[in-house]
Amino acid sequence: MTRSAGAQLPEAAPSAGPAVGAGLVDPRIEDAMRRALAASAQVHGTTSPNPPVGCVILDADGNVAGVGATAPPGGPHAEIVALGQAGERAVGGAAVVSLEPCAHHGRTPPCTAALIGAGIATVYAAVPDPNPLAAGGAAALREAGVAVTIGPLTDEAACGPLRAWLHAMRTGRPHVTWKFAATLDGRSAAVDGTSRWITGREARSQVHAVRATADAIIVGTGTALADNPALTARRPDGTAHAHQPLRVVVGHRDLPRGARLDAPDVLHLRSHDPDVVLAELSRRGVIEALLEGGPRLAGAFLAAGRVDRVLAFVAPALLGAGPAALAEAGVGTIGDIRRLQVDAVHRVGADVLIDARPLQKGTR
Amino acid sequence: MTRSAGAQLPEAAPSAGPAVGAGLVDPRIEDAMRRALAASAQVHGTTSPNPPVGCVILDADGNVAGVGATAPPGGPHAEIVALGQAGERAVGGAAVVSLEPCAHHGRTPPCTAALIGAGIATVYAAVPDPNPLAAGGAAALREAGVAVTIGPLTDEAACGPLRAWLHAMRTGRPHVTWKFAATLDGRSAAVDGTSRWITGREARSQVHAVRATADAIIVGTGTALADNPALTARRPDGTAHAHQPLRVVVGHRDLPRGARLDAPDVLHLRSHDPDVVLAELSRRGVIEALLEGGPRLAGAFLAAGRVDRVLAFVAPALLGAGPAALAEAGVGTIGDIRRLQVDAVHRVGADVLIDARPLQKGTR
Repeated sequence: MTRSAGAQLPEAAPSAGPAVGAGLVDPRIEDAMRRALAASAQVHGTTSPNPPVGCVILDADGNVAGVGATAPPGGPHAEIVALGQAGERAVGGAAVVSLEPCAHHGRTPPCTAALIGAGIATVYAAVPDPNPLAAGGAAALREAGVAVTIGPLTDEAACGPLRAWLHAMRTGRPHVTWKFAATLDGRSAAVDGTSRWITGREARSQVHAVRATADAIIVGTGTALADNPALTARRPDGTAHAHQPLRVVVGHRDLPRGARLDAPDVLHLRSHDPDVVLAELSRRGVIEALLEGGPRLAGAFLAAGRVDRVLAFVAPALLGAGPAALAEAGVGTIGDIRRLQVDAVHRVGADVLIDARPLQKGTR
Repeated sequence: MTRSAGAQLPEAAPSAGPAVGAGLVDPRIEDAMRRALAASAQVHGTTSPNPPVGCVILDADGNVAGVGATAPPGGPHAEIVALGQAGERAVGGAAVVSLEPCAHHGRTPPCTAALIGAGIATVYAAVPDPNPLAAGGAAALREAGVAVTIGPLTDEAACGPLRAWLHAMRTGRPHVTWKFAATLDGRSAAVDGTSRWITGREARSQVHAVRATADAIIVGTGTALADNPALTARRPDGTAHAHQPLRVVVGHRDLPRGARLDAPDVLHLRSHDPDVVLAELSRRGVIEALLEGGPRLAGAFLAAGRVDRVLAFVAPALLGAGPAALAEAGVGTIGDIRRLQVDAVHRVGADVLIDARPLQKGTR
């Protein structure tokens, strides 16, 4: 049920033509790209401000010779890791990579030079690089006689682990996912404030997995005071994920001493302005932010057009009273309703996950 | 994603053994049963208080010789219609019918006698008849030397057009489907009361199709006063469906002269007690009622345990303010939350339809 985000992407560079590595056929390239995407998903959350990229090197016969993914900042890019595994087997082979290889000297030398030096004959890049600093990789490769194709699986890559990074490149702002859990009648707690648990174990586990891919989690002081959450990313057995997002509390009120979020590594921003919050997070290298509540903070982000994705965990349950998941979103009449486009609907345990993105106002 | 309701059904009668009509194989029987179910769906809504049944007659070679469905009350049952089409071709053949044939004299003679008289050798009945008056059909057939099998497609038949009738037979009450449309944050209108339209054209069209299968539509006086609805079942082109449900307004307030529901064929019940309402509808032969709102009336039915199915049309849209779809459902704390089981999730145009049923309290 996933829908393409391709329309929002820059035009794909024209294919270099039919030149492909000897003995390579399309299904093998697509398989390799799926493996590259899987490798990138493994490091999703650990690479910011760099994009989480995956790369598979196929030898001249089309066999997998190396698999790599972006290392944490300062470490090697995916292509370098995969080339290191492939060694001499890269000669005359193909690099299948989820993002157009970079042509610039950043903290590491350009990947294009490494690919050319390793004797790669063909590069398949799922998504062109919109970063003006790093772009030009395809051109540099072609100039060196390497055949370059954009694709396959452009949409899968752009909607997958690269989505937030592409958004940040395009807009200069972190990508914001608003996650909420509510009953079928839109309540996030009972009328007495109790809310454990509205959704089931599988949904809660999935929220923790989403946290583990985020650079930052944002909550309002109201949620911090009411729920005293830890905001950590934990596995179902209670152990912590290796990557923990920056915990951010937004609002003017102080947290009481001893609160779980009264910790030196928690960022407390004393502003409700989404753009002030996002600018500060951007300054800290945040590409992907997860907004977890409460209703008024979500309303402020939504009203400001600063929600890029909605993950609604809908519990098949009814309360009939109690706080709503969203408040003060700036909608006074039906004509101003905030429409979303549903990208996917999943059953998660007993619950339903609706994965959607806001549409521009006025579209349906 | 449909789940079986089989656990709530009476035990299936044991199969009469391997005796099947000459030349018949299982896929043909299943195909015939699908055709019988499709025929029953065509008359769904027009047969109450009788069940909407479909029947296919296969000749001795397994070819379709007749297809029938229950006629409106007083008219012939499905078996009689199908036998009439088949004529002499029924001799030695099979009757594939969605419900166990009746063995009693009601307004029409028993179908078992007609099947035996026509020379039918085998009967496949998807669902046993729980009606104590009509039951005994399988036994009567077997006594006459007809082989009887319960099935195939028992679950499909029981969850399909027969669902409400089976419920009514078991409980003595009409089956109540609560339908509502709301945003992802549970609002059924904007804060200024405007609500046209929250869901899209396809969802609204589906609501009208559901109305056309109901015997009655129930709304509260609040909804009648606020929205002045027609509560008719119309096709997308605006024309009326052949079957129109009884329109029922519940509540103490009078409707203003000239309101669409201020009509002689509208039943106005001046009680909010769901059991009083359902008893009156039952007395009028209603098997299947569609509850359309408002929030407090839905809350009363839910609190009383008188909602048997929930059809939630969830619009991918956010309002952040405005009336909720449900109110006063008698839940004060999270431990009393009303849990549902999701039977199916459908994408309907841009919207999401969650088809669910309330679980017994305390189960998850």
